[in-house]
Amino acid sequence: MADYQSLNNKLIKISKRTIEMCTAAGSGHPSSGLSLAHITTALMYRIMRYDPKNPWNKNADRLVLSEGHAVPVLYAVYCEIGGVGGTKDAPQTLTFDDSLTLREGDSILDGHPNPAQGMPFFDAATGSLGQGASVAAGLAIAARLDKSDKHIFCIIGDGESREGQIWEAVDFIADHKLNAVRLIFNCNGQGQSDYVSPQQSPEVLAAKLQAANFEVKIIDGHDWDQVFDALTAKASTKPIAVIAKTVKGWGSTELSSKNYHGKPLSDDLVAQALADLDAVAKKLGVDTSKDVDALELAIPQDKKSACCCSCGCDNAVDAGGFADAVKAAGAESALQAKKLSTRRAYGFALQAMGENTNIVGLDADVQGSTFANLFAKKYSDRFFECRIAEQNMISAAAGIAAAGKIPFASTFAKFFVRAYDQIEMAVISNANIKLCGSHAGVSLAADGPSQMALPDLAFMRSFAHSKNVKGDPAIRVFCPSDSVSAFKLTEQMANTEGMCYMRTHRPDVAMLYDENEEFPFGGYKQLVEGKDLCVVASGYMVHIAKTAIEQLAKDGISCCLFDVYSLPLLQVDELIDKVAGCCGKILVVEDNYVGAFADEIASAAAKTGKVTVDSMFVRTVPKSAKTPKDILEMVKLTPDDITKQVKTMVG
Amino acid sequence: MADYQSLNNKLIKISKRTIEMCTAAGSGHPSSGLSLAHITTALMYRIMRYDPKNPWNKNADRLVLSEGHAVPVLYAVYCEIGGVGGTKDAPQTLTFDDSLTLREGDSILDGHPNPAQGMPFFDAATGSLGQGASVAAGLAIAARLDKSDKHIFCIIGDGESREGQIWEAVDFIADHKLNAVRLIFNCNGQGQSDYVSPQQSPEVLAAKLQAANFEVKIIDGHDWDQVFDALTAKASTKPIAVIAKTVKGWGSTELSSKNYHGKPLSDDLVAQALADLDAVAKKLGVDTSKDVDALELAIPQDKKSACCCSCGCDNAVDAGGFADAVKAAGAESALQAKKLSTRRAYGFALQAMGENTNIVGLDADVQGSTFANLFAKKYSDRFFECRIAEQNMISAAAGIAAAGKIPFASTFAKFFVRAYDQIEMAVISNANIKLCGSHAGVSLAADGPSQMALPDLAFMRSFAHSKNVKGDPAIRVFCPSDSVSAFKLTEQMANTEGMCYMRTHRPDVAMLYDENEEFPFGGYKQLVEGKDLCVVASGYMVHIAKTAIEQLAKDGISCCLFDVYSLPLLQVDELIDKVAGCCGKILVVEDNYVGAFADEIASAAAKTGKVTVDSMFVRTVPKSAKTPKDILEMVKLTPDDITKQVKTMVG
Repeated sequence: MADYQSLNNKLIKISKRTIEMCTAAGSGHPSSGLSLAHITTALMYRIMRYDPKNPWNKNADRLVLSEGHAVPVLYAVYCEIGGVGGTKDAPQTLTFDDSLTLREGDSILDGHPNPAQGMPFFDAATGSLGQGASVAAGLAIAARLDKSDKHIFCIIGDGESREGQIWEAVDFIADHKLNAVRLIFNCNGQGQSDYVSPQQSPEVLAAKLQAANFEVKIIDGHDWDQVFDALTAKASTKPIAVIAKTVKGWGSTELSSKNYHGKPLSDDLVAQALADLDAVAKKLGVDTSKDVDALELAIPQDKKSACCCSCGCDNAVDAGGFADAVKAAGAESALQAKKLSTRRAYGFALQAMGENTNIVGLDADVQGSTFANLFAKKYSDRFFECRIAEQNMISAAAGIAAAGKIPFASTFAKFFVRAYDQIEMAVISNANIKLCGSHAGVSLAADGPSQMALPDLAFMRSFAHSKNVKGDPAIRVFCPSDSVSAFKLTEQMANTEGMCYMRTHRPDVAMLYDENEEFPFGGYKQLVEGKDLCVVASGYMVHIAKTAIEQLAKDGISCCLFDVYSLPLLQVDELIDKVAGCCGKILVVEDNYVGAFADEIASAAAKTGKVTVDSMFVRTVPKSAKTPKDILEMVKLTPDDITKQVKTMVG
Repeated sequence: MADYQSLNNKLIKISKRTIEMCTAAGSGHPSSGLSLAHITTALMYRIMRYDPKNPWNKNADRLVLSEGHAVPVLYAVYCEIGGVGGTKDAPQTLTFDDSLTLREGDSILDGHPNPAQGMPFFDAATGSLGQGASVAAGLAIAARLDKSDKHIFCIIGDGESREGQIWEAVDFIADHKLNAVRLIFNCNGQGQSDYVSPQQSPEVLAAKLQAANFEVKIIDGHDWDQVFDALTAKASTKPIAVIAKTVKGWGSTELSSKNYHGKPLSDDLVAQALADLDAVAKKLGVDTSKDVDALELAIPQDKKSACCCSCGCDNAVDAGGFADAVKAAGAESALQAKKLSTRRAYGFALQAMGENTNIVGLDADVQGSTFANLFAKKYSDRFFECRIAEQNMISAAAGIAAAGKIPFASTFAKFFVRAYDQIEMAVISNANIKLCGSHAGVSLAADGPSQMALPDLAFMRSFAHSKNVKGDPAIRVFCPSDSVSAFKLTEQMANTEGMCYMRTHRPDVAMLYDENEEFPFGGYKQLVEGKDLCVVASGYMVHIAKTAIEQLAKDGISCCLFDVYSLPLLQVDELIDKVAGCCGKILVVEDNYVGAFADEIASAAAKTGKVTVDSMFVRTVPKSAKTPKDILEMVKLTPDDITKQVKTMVG
């Protein structure tokens, strides 16, 4: 039997601290943390191959705490070890005392794991449950591409495993044989409101995992031998999952005697809990008055970190010329016809950029529609089919991005809604993910509203005006109107650090731009000059607005046409000044629900009142219609509707 | 052996039509439909107890087509039977010829199932995959409450079963013993881009379902005996799931010989496919030149339909008086202190309304935080704990609502993001669901950004300005600032048909209103009179703005304060006129990301330019801080920040 006395010493120390730090914070989850006392101690003092002094070592084993609320116990260990946090430029060595700053405004020990706030030990923000296994899968994908043999441990709560995404991740891990992932289910039997459902009992979880082609080890999560055996077992053909039976509030009579979810002990109860742990120490024969050395880590050699390709280095992503890429993809006829869909241009760009080995492709069983299939065919080793499971795709992308790759994830823009929570968590992580949502707006027509993205821009824009820790827009939104801009903006996404969302459309549309045109982020293009009214449109609606303006010209009404292709619209004040110097009237035309460019421009205009702004957008929940023309009639966004509105405004 | 010859006749007829109607539409999924030819024929001509002439019979068996894209075959059957669609006021009897109007703008045969567009045979819009099993579970809950013995059949694609939500539903069905649900997995082995993963093979699906405590029957989905046996088998203690092995494109050599996902046959290939089916008919000994009578349905007696309680009938929901409800809940001290959180007021209202048996409560393992536990305790038979699985909760609510109940679903507002796709699908269904998201905004503080709802109002507002088929806002948004308004608006949600979203906050706040105050939808309240500037705030920020205005008054600056408590803000023009007649300057203050009230007011103001609008909202991705005060400092929304901004504007 191995000697665990030094670990036992730490076990008591960090268990005590877990209790103390939550009470000091006035909130937090000591009982969940204590159920993981043995597992985290074993992992972080012994099992993981990592360097607490260099959490940026990309060759190190990783630990994803999917049940993020249990984080106090991990912080306690990491502070006890003297792990490093902060940023590479400003690293911060944590002390044991620092653990008592949990949840304070100026502490890097956020309420839930958060790499963006100074804890690079973590790869992704967690706290919204059920996402960690997917992140771990993404990290394993990156490890495989990097030829690193690192292990990725992922701790999941039993109640948490009710989230369907866990099972998407399980299938994904099995599909792609990501055996570097070790899923650990922490079965302490209690949720917030009740005991965990029998559907999430250790036995049922084990049966489900076995059904999903995992090898399963059921252990006592407070038995060192069993913990070490299960966590260090070598996976053979199947990935291994560990079901750890644990005690919520382990070591404290008060915390373990009833359901104590998410509540720190009051000051007067802390003393008793610490005494309980002293009694445990005594039973274990541990002298807690002495500090011992328990750390036995194998520190892996750091690999040259993959560049994020946003630093202007030689590794910048290059899509080459638009026409070259179109020809290379065998679509020369599109160049002759000067007509191509924005979604296909995305595919051409992705394929052309694929030579850069940092690019990783992901799609959710619609690669033939999003045109991610072009990349998939050419770079099959770097393409990962996620099947019909969008949530897992996004969190896996977060894991891939955390390892320094540039994941491009695509599906219908409508189906990204399925993963808005995962997208938001990736934003909190400050993850470098590129999203391309195809078939956006109403122009998809025949398939009907279940396939149309309409509130997408409102959601994405809300992040576009929120700054991440680097001071950049938390999400940059790209709305190309034609294939040239779609191609160029796809390349721009690759070379811009942070979360980017592009919206492409189904129909073929005319090419509006020369292939040498540049599309600076936040800018706009003036396509038509006029004097009576300024029409602002984006995406597919640029073409509809253009037709309207051509009709109006015949009636002697001359309108400007502006193409706005990104959010935030950084040059909005310049645009408004231009309009103020012209006709003073703007009409914004969009193929989405309210909340995008009309609001963007109106909110800037309302600051001064210099120009007036009217808008046309989708104001009804649509249904199917056979063609884009039919559906535009239905939602009153045809060229005729626009000309009518313009005439009213010019009146 | 039973005589299936009349069914075989229909089988050939509807299979042919499935092919023809997709080709006529120019899009659609004939191959998926054909894989279900036997199952839908068996269900709709024989097994289901329903009345095609009265799809509103609430006591009838239901069919949820989770894989919505396969709908052409169901339409073919329903049209062949001469089923009724449209609305109760304007019913429309379908003819076989009507099946050829698939996907047309003025047809009720939408691209995917859509009850709101005239197909009440369906209970929920599908097409975004993985949601149907949850809808079926909700229908089974309503059936149990109504003491109806109806069966709920639900057809799920094999590729679709990759969606985690399916497994949330499976657990939910097992937890609540909803054995009236019969899940049918259509295993045709093909997805859009590829063959279905081995993780979704019939055998693995069967093992997963068995692990989840289902009884499983694996059948040949094109064998009448097996289909009838499996679909009519009585469930004993466990729910039954049927794994049907089927052929995608059954009956057509072309459609079944390769992956033909989502593509209609070209005109020239249709003739061959029809000839193939004639050959099948010949083999079966069926004379397709004769029409036979195949319909053998047991029509259940209709029960008095539960009232939706939005029609002003006696069944209207009544929460009684605010103070009475607070006292009844044993919280009299809150009345004395005149302080209570909005989330707790929601709980009081829900509990008080519970006497109305139409109210059904749902929560996702946070009932102690949302205060849904007050309802849960008193009306345990009408409360359904959904565990940590928000997607299933919302789609189950859609099923419950479809049966005429009024489901109130609650969780942290942040965690509703997990179910935004399900919420959107419920909007498309025009489902009468009430959502209450607690702990919204930044005032949650210590738990950090993974628990804070910040883009929620942008998303919800985008629907607030989209009209549903009844001409109402697709979502009505409620943002109470105090406990009285929260209480009253909860009651208002119950009595307003359609999707409603309420946002409550964590902290206790002062009561601002008398219990007799009314809160007409879309209105506003003026809390403070002033002349120098008008501050508009909502929710928690009303209190912060009020403090700022009190500070400003000491400096001789007098501001109006308006509380806006709902979206769309129907009285926005009146509000703007009032400001125009006062100081002409508005400052909007919000505790969310951009896209809510500031845009609502700015977009209205920008139409005329009569007033100017500035705004303060959350402009950074936050982190943890110990108190609401700390976090407001971090995001620059303290009373001091507001006074500073006001002084700049008043200048």
